[in-house]
Amino acid sequence: MRAVALLSDFGLEDHYAGVLHAVLARDAPGAARVDLGHRVPFGDIWAGSYLLRSAWSHLPADSVVLAVVDPGVGTARRAVAVRVGARYLVAPDNGLATAVGLPDEAVGLDPELMGLERPAPTFHGRDLFAPAAARLARGELLASLGAPVDPGTLASCPLPEPVTTSVGWVTTVLWVDHFGNVVTNLSASALGETAAVRLEAGRRLRRVATYGDADQGEAVALLGSSGLLELAVNRGSAAELLGLRRGARVHLTRSRGQGE
Amino acid sequence: MRAVALLSDFGLEDHYAGVLHAVLARDAPGAARVDLGHRVPFGDIWAGSYLLRSAWSHLPADSVVLAVVDPGVGTARRAVAVRVGARYLVAPDNGLATAVGLPDEAVGLDPELMGLERPAPTFHGRDLFAPAAARLARGELLASLGAPVDPGTLASCPLPEPVTTSVGWVTTVLWVDHFGNVVTNLSASALGETAAVRLEAGRRLRRVATYGDADQGEAVALLGSSGLLELAVNRGSAAELLGLRRGARVHLTRSRGQGE
Amino acid sequence: MRAVALLSDFGLEDHYAGVLHAVLARDAPGAARVDLGHRVPFGDIWAGSYLLRSAWSHLPADSVVLAVVDPGVGTARRAVAVRVGARYLVAPDNGLATAVGLPDEAVGLDPELMGLERPAPTFHGRDLFAPAAARLARGELLASLGAPVDPGTLASCPLPEPVTTSVGWVTTVLWVDHFGNVVTNLSASALGETAAVRLEAGRRLRRVATYGDADQGEAVALLGSSGLLELAVNRGSAAELLGLRRGARVHLTRSRGQGE
Repeated sequence: MRAVALLSDFGLEDHYAGVLHAVLARDAPGAARVDLGHRVPFGDIWAGSYLLRSAWSHLPADSVVLAVVDPGVGTARRAVAVRVGARYLVAPDNGLATAVGLPDEAVGLDPELMGLERPAPTFHGRDLFAPAAARLARGELLASLGAPVDPGTLASCPLPEPVTTSVGWVTTVLWVDHFGNVVTNLSASALGETAAVRLEAGRRLRRVATYGDADQGEAVALLGSSGLLELAVNRGSAAELLGLRRGARVHLTRSRGQGE
Repeated sequence: MRAVALLSDFGLEDHYAGVLHAVLARDAPGAARVDLGHRVPFGDIWAGSYLLRSAWSHLPADSVVLAVVDPGVGTARRAVAVRVGARYLVAPDNGLATAVGLPDEAVGLDPELMGLERPAPTFHGRDLFAPAAARLARGELLASLGAPVDPGTLASCPLPEPVTTSVGWVTTVLWVDHFGNVVTNLSASALGETAAVRLEAGRRLRRVATYGDADQGEAVALLGSSGLLELAVNRGSAAELLGLRRGARVHLTRSRGQGE
Repeated sequence: MRAVALLSDFGLEDHYAGVLHAVLARDAPGAARVDLGHRVPFGDIWAGSYLLRSAWSHLPADSVVLAVVDPGVGTARRAVAVRVGARYLVAPDNGLATAVGLPDEAVGLDPELMGLERPAPTFHGRDLFAPAAARLARGELLASLGAPVDPGTLASCPLPEPVTTSVGWVTTVLWVDHFGNVVTNLSASALGETAAVRLEAGRRLRRVATYGDADQGEAVALLGSSGLLELAVNRGSAAELLGLRRGARVHLTRSRGQGE
């Protein structure tokens, strides 16, 4: 039995997230279930994509991920299951399905082929996505869930890439975590040995290894746990101090020397 | 081993909900556990009842539900376990135990008969309800938990029924979900083929199949995933737009024609 | 396979708590997982210690607890695994590791000895603590995680003890729960048969058995479910009514008679 990881924008006040678990417990009893989170802001594909991407490589090697951030539930958007490497992802075709890379295989979910009752038009999570994830958890093949879809036709993930400039990069804030750390889209390999970065406004952030290496209240740059450049403040909120929110463009100048 | 679904008003800031899981893991190791939610507002039997009812039919066929919304903990209110169809429900006798229909069987929980230590008067969830649910999960019989109770004497669930009028219904808002959707108590069968409803103030809501069928900002009526009439706004809050809260009476006039 | 209980200050908005579960599901498939909570305020060792201590004795007898409240992640603070009785606790050495008593045994976590890749300096929860907890869940010995540490050298838990005075005690508020109940550090044995307590300002709180024994709005004293003196208000917030927060000193005068 494969493990199933769940991500949604259902929140924890209603029964919706619990019912996803109930359906999995009913249709794939014995499958391990892992909550990646249910507090994705309503309909926020960007957030869902970021969280999926951040968790993906740490999941059990053959897991199934059930990702339901689906503002278009019941409309013409496709419902799909995809394979990326050895893992499966079941999601609406709104960008989530490509959040962890272009899938190797994809199918459109077909309730009839799966022998499901007609899904309630407002809760495909319960009536379509979760039953599909349960089938994959039990070892069924993608082909038993629906007809093939060309992975190249799937909606693109909204997370942007950084742009290289002559002095550094134009990055985008992908995420502000609940500690206030600002996660950009600049990867470890692009960052290289850069010893410090300078913000557009002039502020210089030295590169450190971890939060506790900064002085109290000092804003610093570091390579975060997802392999992306983070701006952080020791025991404080970098987002607040630097006035940065998700989606903000951050122009960074590479700075190699000490007092550069 | 039966699955156990948990519902409480314990919140997620304290150790209380975690300790329910700990006791289940201790007394019924191997039983699947499903969180239906721990964010029921404090002592709110109505909310607990609504959530139980909404999740009930999607749970594994022979599950045990542990529902602890218990403002009268340690007082004279009874603690019970009931059977409704093939599922069990363990709860205080304050209306929760009848939330999913009149039980087929009921017993009053007897800590001595179960061989439990005297429960802490302020935490029956930990010391009485969870151990009882664990016993049912392990396959023990209701009779091993306590003496029979006449189901007819159990406290009534507070959720009201709609009233039919000559032109439509007087409904009650059972729930406002975290998306802002307004769930009434009007069932699919009562609603029938109604093509639109008119609110007391005159506003006409056309009936659609799903949220995305509404225009941006349009309030519509639809049959929600629990088989109840919902008032909704596409990517907005119907509760806010229509000024409706849980418990509000909503007079609805049936409207069949297009411009009626 | 031992059960693993998780506690952290990771919140539920990010992927961090989910990734702890993912790593456990990957490295100790089949181990039961119990969330004690992920809403410990950021870096709050006191809160983490209180919650650990409150849940500890209700966990399965041989559980492993993974507690990550780690503001010093990646700095010189030690990462340890300890044994207290038959249970294990994996935590940073910042007071958490001694929250449930002086350990019987302790080791410093050694990623190399465990065959782990170099942990990301900002996420030892994912790369060091969770893999270590998974190893203990699978039955590996403490010695396989690292070299012995003298338990006497571990950082002390910050929770204070009460002070006995000639007329009663100087207690400290250890916790205010989400119901508004004020949990002090005065134990059942110290409290004894005390029939009422008087606050410094003169207010007399009669001792009752449970919340529902108080009149509506009445502040009372009772022995809480963790065996500590609680100040409570029936269906209200004692913290608000009495103006008490976590950490507050509360001078209590013992009161035996009825109108004393």
